[in-house]
Amino acid sequence: MFNNRVKIKELLTWQPEQQQVTVMGWVRTFRNNQFVALNDGSTNNNVQVVLELGKFNDDLLKRITTSAALKVKGTVIPSLGKGQTLEVKADEVEILGDSDAEKYPLQPKKHSLEFLREIAHLRFRTNTFGSVFRIRHALAFAVHQFFNNKGFIYLHTPIVTASDAEGAGEMFRVTTLPFDNPPRKEDGSIDYAEDFFGRSTNLTVSGQLEGELGATAFGEIYTFGPTFRAENSNTARHLAEFWMIEPEMAFHDLEDNANLAEEFIQYLIRYVMENNADDLEFLRQRLLDEEKQKPQNERSEMDLIQKLEFVVNNKFERITYTEAIDILLQSPHYKKKKFQYDVKWGIDMQSEHERYLVEKHFKKPVIVTNYPADIKSFYMRQNDDGKTVAAMDILAPGIGEIVGGSQREERLDKLEQRMKDMGVPSEELWWYLDTRRFGTVPHAGFGLGFERMVQFVTGMGNIRDVIAFPRTPKNAEF
Amino acid sequence: MFNNRVKIKELLTWQPEQQQVTVMGWVRTFRNNQFVALNDGSTNNNVQVVLELGKFNDDLLKRITTSAALKVKGTVIPSLGKGQTLEVKADEVEILGDSDAEKYPLQPKKHSLEFLREIAHLRFRTNTFGSVFRIRHALAFAVHQFFNNKGFIYLHTPIVTASDAEGAGEMFRVTTLPFDNPPRKEDGSIDYAEDFFGRSTNLTVSGQLEGELGATAFGEIYTFGPTFRAENSNTARHLAEFWMIEPEMAFHDLEDNANLAEEFIQYLIRYVMENNADDLEFLRQRLLDEEKQKPQNERSEMDLIQKLEFVVNNKFERITYTEAIDILLQSPHYKKKKFQYDVKWGIDMQSEHERYLVEKHFKKPVIVTNYPADIKSFYMRQNDDGKTVAAMDILAPGIGEIVGGSQREERLDKLEQRMKDMGVPSEELWWYLDTRRFGTVPHAGFGLGFERMVQFVTGMGNIRDVIAFPRTPKNAEF
Repeated sequence: MFNNRVKIKELLTWQPEQQQVTVMGWVRTFRNNQFVALNDGSTNNNVQVVLELGKFNDDLLKRITTSAALKVKGTVIPSLGKGQTLEVKADEVEILGDSDAEKYPLQPKKHSLEFLREIAHLRFRTNTFGSVFRIRHALAFAVHQFFNNKGFIYLHTPIVTASDAEGAGEMFRVTTLPFDNPPRKEDGSIDYAEDFFGRSTNLTVSGQLEGELGATAFGEIYTFGPTFRAENSNTARHLAEFWMIEPEMAFHDLEDNANLAEEFIQYLIRYVMENNADDLEFLRQRLLDEEKQKPQNERSEMDLIQKLEFVVNNKFERITYTEAIDILLQSPHYKKKKFQYDVKWGIDMQSEHERYLVEKHFKKPVIVTNYPADIKSFYMRQNDDGKTVAAMDILAPGIGEIVGGSQREERLDKLEQRMKDMGVPSEELWWYLDTRRFGTVPHAGFGLGFERMVQFVTGMGNIRDVIAFPRTPKNAEF
Repeated sequence: MFNNRVKIKELLTWQPEQQQVTVMGWVRTFRNNQFVALNDGSTNNNVQVVLELGKFNDDLLKRITTSAALKVKGTVIPSLGKGQTLEVKADEVEILGDSDAEKYPLQPKKHSLEFLREIAHLRFRTNTFGSVFRIRHALAFAVHQFFNNKGFIYLHTPIVTASDAEGAGEMFRVTTLPFDNPPRKEDGSIDYAEDFFGRSTNLTVSGQLEGELGATAFGEIYTFGPTFRAENSNTARHLAEFWMIEPEMAFHDLEDNANLAEEFIQYLIRYVMENNADDLEFLRQRLLDEEKQKPQNERSEMDLIQKLEFVVNNKFERITYTEAIDILLQSPHYKKKKFQYDVKWGIDMQSEHERYLVEKHFKKPVIVTNYPADIKSFYMRQNDDGKTVAAMDILAPGIGEIVGGSQREERLDKLEQRMKDMGVPSEELWWYLDTRRFGTVPHAGFGLGFERMVQFVTGMGNIRDVIAFPRTPKNAEF
């Protein structure tokens, strides 16, 4: 048995003065041949290990370099240094693993986020990414806790799929056929009947359609899994592989859907505020430092924690798409022709429009409902006006769309007509239509992009910095 | 707002006598034009809705068919029927969705599991699959709770990857290249530099290697995500897409690893016993009924719940691979030549050998350690005997291997030599080797096949019956 250490986070909370403890971790700094700042990843806070002068031999001291791994047995004593209440006076020090300080890619200086992306396997060892990924963990746990408390069933919808939920997305093919000499049919086309699954298959873009199958049996379900878009978008907002949470609820209408989404987002933020105060404080400070580079008028009015407090303490604004367009048309911004893209009823709002609404006009998250049918998916419930559907998007300051959802079209005839109009093949979706044939119910659901949520809570500007190993065009390293 | 119902599970627990409630759900049965058994998926238990004779018109009564969706407002009254303590006397009944009883694929009779697989979109509405998927949910939540309580970080390792953790598995290609006329290099080979990720990419077979990157920064992490095997295995034990849990711990050796795995499995089972008693009882009875078809001598000595109690209340047996082989060689089974495959030191034990050990010899879960190096992966820690590695498998009665893990080789020179010997390309895994270069530490981890765990707890014999929409050779329906 090797694992008899106390985690540094526990040690700092627990404060077992005068007791013998074993700590293990990696060296952050080593000062005066005497003071080791040791970190084990449980918190950004290091524990100071004190090596009595003369007690340890020079060979050992030389091996205490940045990122070397140590096992220390020692006694917990009160600390005289500032910023820490205790330290560990070392009785025994063992080098578990050396680290050549000159070759170690993480030098004791500030590295750019771009550089750290290239060494994503080591960036977890920095304070920034330590905080980001501990918060990512906390958010993921909070997701499960929120839905479990409400009696939702976690459904693992398939990753490899023959269907395309959005009816449009660019998808990745999944195949075991050889590129050299693939099997062909008589007409020369590729014979996917010979492929592993006996048909053409892709990576899922959404678990929603399968989620609806669960909701119409269990009442309320959610998914939380990876989804994929083969879009050639090299932006700070897009990933080819990302995680999505998709609750789907029978007996819910659009208003219930919006209520749940708002409660959910507020719950997640509150959970992190209660469980990751140290990490949030670090990121708040980090963001303030970053903003100091900007001119005064581009800096945020609120710091990270103030922004989160504001979101949990205020109701989200709720407006219809039609109202949103009116606000944009009457805005000084529009009148001064500051929007790059045109504004009129029927447009798919661009990022600049959404940001204007949430950041300039309302200054808080906004739920926009009842979008034009023409810009939305086939499964959304048709409103009585004949031109809008019961869709909703939630727009967040600094992020844009964070949630997209709708009440689903539960009426078989209307759904079939719409699929026909939009060219969605109803034979392939026979199972989806069955839910409308046998005891259909009003139901609704939404999707939350998990990385966008992590961005919102951590204040990280680039989505590649909130997922462990980002997948983007021309990049699948690690 | 539509969602003002009380869930049937809550109603049956809460028992608000004489109060007005709204329930919604699907009709299981309708007797005597009077008694509706209504189910909403929150539990297998139906609530009985009583329609006073003469109060509702015939048109409405005719539409109350199996699987029709109802909204009922009524008063909670004590029930005189057996097996239920309350019922709802209906004041208002609304048909939310009709169901043509003759066309409804789930007829009120016993369907085979094979048939239900073909209508996997509806099988959630049966008692068997209701229980299985509520337990699957409970197990998934317990996984997160177990690790969160211990301070592990949930890491989302990539699904699309250029590396092959096992060094061997058959993998699915992920691509956006066209089969017709793919880009080729001068030598005629496919030019994967033109593919979406700029290289040849696959679906992951394991998140372990990336998990180790997390463990050597955060100390303790776990993954819980989909993994893939393009094996053409049409058995009751294999899926092409399945979910795996992979914890990875710095500062752990093989014994710590085994301790954690045992504690984890017992925690999961205990969680279900405490939270899903009704569902377990249903499945216990189901299994007893199933076993009645078997001859007496093939029936289990313990029923489902007794088996689970036995596992949580007894320490797992721990033996080395060498001891396991000795037991097999000395068994009456071997001496009577009843094993199909040969037994000798060095073999990769077959399912029949593992089952003999756990089901006949020890009659409980067994942790087998220190396997021959030749049959194990490159990353496992080499033991001092020069022929075994610090691997461990956990074998469970009725399931076989449920956990596979090891202490990892943390010594750079030994790891590099082994990769060379086994032909694992070390250039591609530069990032993996970096963890051994900069502060390497003893560490260990394991993988738990989630579906096997669900099988073990639910007693379902076929792995296709514990995942929502199974992916197997020639099958990617739904």
